[in-house]
Amino acid sequence: MIPYMFVEAIMHQNHRTMGEAMQQCIDACVSCVSICLRCSDEMIGMDADSHMDHKDKDIRQVCIRLCQDCAGICVLSAQWMSRLSSSADMLHRVCADICDRCAEMCERHTLHHPLCEECAAVCRHCAQLCREMPGAAA
Amino acid sequence: MIPYMFVEAIMHQNHRTMGEAMQQCIDACVSCVSICLRCSDEMIGMDADSHMDHKDKDIRQVCIRLCQDCAGICVLSAQWMSRLSSSADMLHRVCADICDRCAEMCERHTLHHPLCEECAAVCRHCAQLCREMPGAAA
Amino acid sequence: MIPYMFVEAIMHQNHRTMGEAMQQCIDACVSCVSICLRCSDEMIGMDADSHMDHKDKDIRQVCIRLCQDCAGICVLSAQWMSRLSSSADMLHRVCADICDRCAEMCERHTLHHPLCEECAAVCRHCAQLCREMPGAAA
Amino acid sequence: MIPYMFVEAIMHQNHRTMGEAMQQCIDACVSCVSICLRCSDEMIGMDADSHMDHKDKDIRQVCIRLCQDCAGICVLSAQWMSRLSSSADMLHRVCADICDRCAEMCERHTLHHPLCEECAAVCRHCAQLCREMPGAAA
Repeated sequence: MIPYMFVEAIMHQNHRTMGEAMQQCIDACVSCVSICLRCSDEMIGMDADSHMDHKDKDIRQVCIRLCQDCAGICVLSAQWMSRLSSSADMLHRVCADICDRCAEMCERHTLHHPLCEECAAVCRHCAQLCREMPGAAA
Repeated sequence: MIPYMFVEAIMHQNHRTMGEAMQQCIDACVSCVSICLRCSDEMIGMDADSHMDHKDKDIRQVCIRLCQDCAGICVLSAQWMSRLSSSADMLHRVCADICDRCAEMCERHTLHHPLCEECAAVCRHCAQLCREMPGAAA
Repeated sequence: MIPYMFVEAIMHQNHRTMGEAMQQCIDACVSCVSICLRCSDEMIGMDADSHMDHKDKDIRQVCIRLCQDCAGICVLSAQWMSRLSSSADMLHRVCADICDRCAEMCERHTLHHPLCEECAAVCRHCAQLCREMPGAAA
Repeated sequence: MIPYMFVEAIMHQNHRTMGEAMQQCIDACVSCVSICLRCSDEMIGMDADSHMDHKDKDIRQVCIRLCQDCAGICVLSAQWMSRLSSSADMLHRVCADICDRCAEMCERHTLHHPLCEECAAVCRHCAQLCREMPGAAA
């Protein structure tokens, strides 16, 4: 049987308040969702350039998928933080890692897709704020 | 067989741009998600007041659920608008209706839960902007 | 002020039960989410065939996007039905319409992408069950 | 600059197939979403029993929230696996941990809410399958 202490730790949620850091992290996640969705959608709408080699096409496909993954994890993270969920602490590190992966790929794709440069910057910023949240280092 | 015209209409997505009205509607949806999640979570954390009668308890339950519904539809709507999806037009009216339903219930619950007053105002604003979007009148 | 009757109508949720039709509709939505996500992902991973003309490329792009829209609305609808939300009734018609739009496009794309044929069938089935749910005709 | 090897690793997605284990994990996640949403909704609809002490009320609140968290992470995980996303591997451990937390709390609440017993069992099963997926041990 788990100790009641565990309940008390989670009940803490009732007394949590939205600190400055959490509000900024939510805002970063929301911005990340928005640009990642737009970025992946633009790439879906791009024709394969005749001068794109095989590697470039691979990068585009991976970039589309990572942008979608990044949007998905950030929207969940933002929702959990908005209701001060204790589970949010368990998501910050994964969220940061996926933001960074997405940024890495977007940085490789900027030559063929200018919006990727802005998207990568937004992802990097989000990753950084997620890493500063409680639980991210665990 | 559906006419190619249909494809062309949707392909329009590639040439859509994010207008001022759509950006404001996205922002309103995002704010609505945030406050509805916080509002429902606070109500989940509230003890039934000893002086609450049966109707008040009913209102609280309905209010919690409508806040969750409202957050759910607004998050989908915001995501679709962010990627300029042509399907977003089909969601605006339902989104507005659910925002209004949520606002109605929050307005009834403000006496017992102050945040409901702010939540209702945010929902009303979101409903209004959704109704001004293309397709909402259809 | 909205009448208490409204609360009573929604409170009905506490006494709703999961009927056969709703369970089948949930299952159809879940299947639709799954195949639409796989279908769009496969198309993202496809190279533009050298023999594809401009119209075919357009169809693929639209198909990817509609599959994603369809997955998004079906996942929300399935979640609302799972908790017997009264708001689900407001979503059935939109969900059916988007499933049908997705099916139409997948049917046009089967020549270039075999999975689209199966995806279209699953979408059509889901659309039909959604249309048979309460509120869909409203 | 990240090596192209990284792209190749992720591109692997195009060649991934849906194995038996992954399909079972998706099914477990879908079942978990469904019962967690129903379980939390039922608890929202429950009156505080006059004979419930403070601890019991605390447990109910935590249980409602964890069921919602569990549904949220499982729906994301199921979606990522459905499209064979390489990011899914990064989510399995967190998903398993949240399923287990939810199960722990539901097990404590079965006396007051019979559905919690079934919900706990479904969560435990899901946690187990998630832990057997690639990346869960990382």
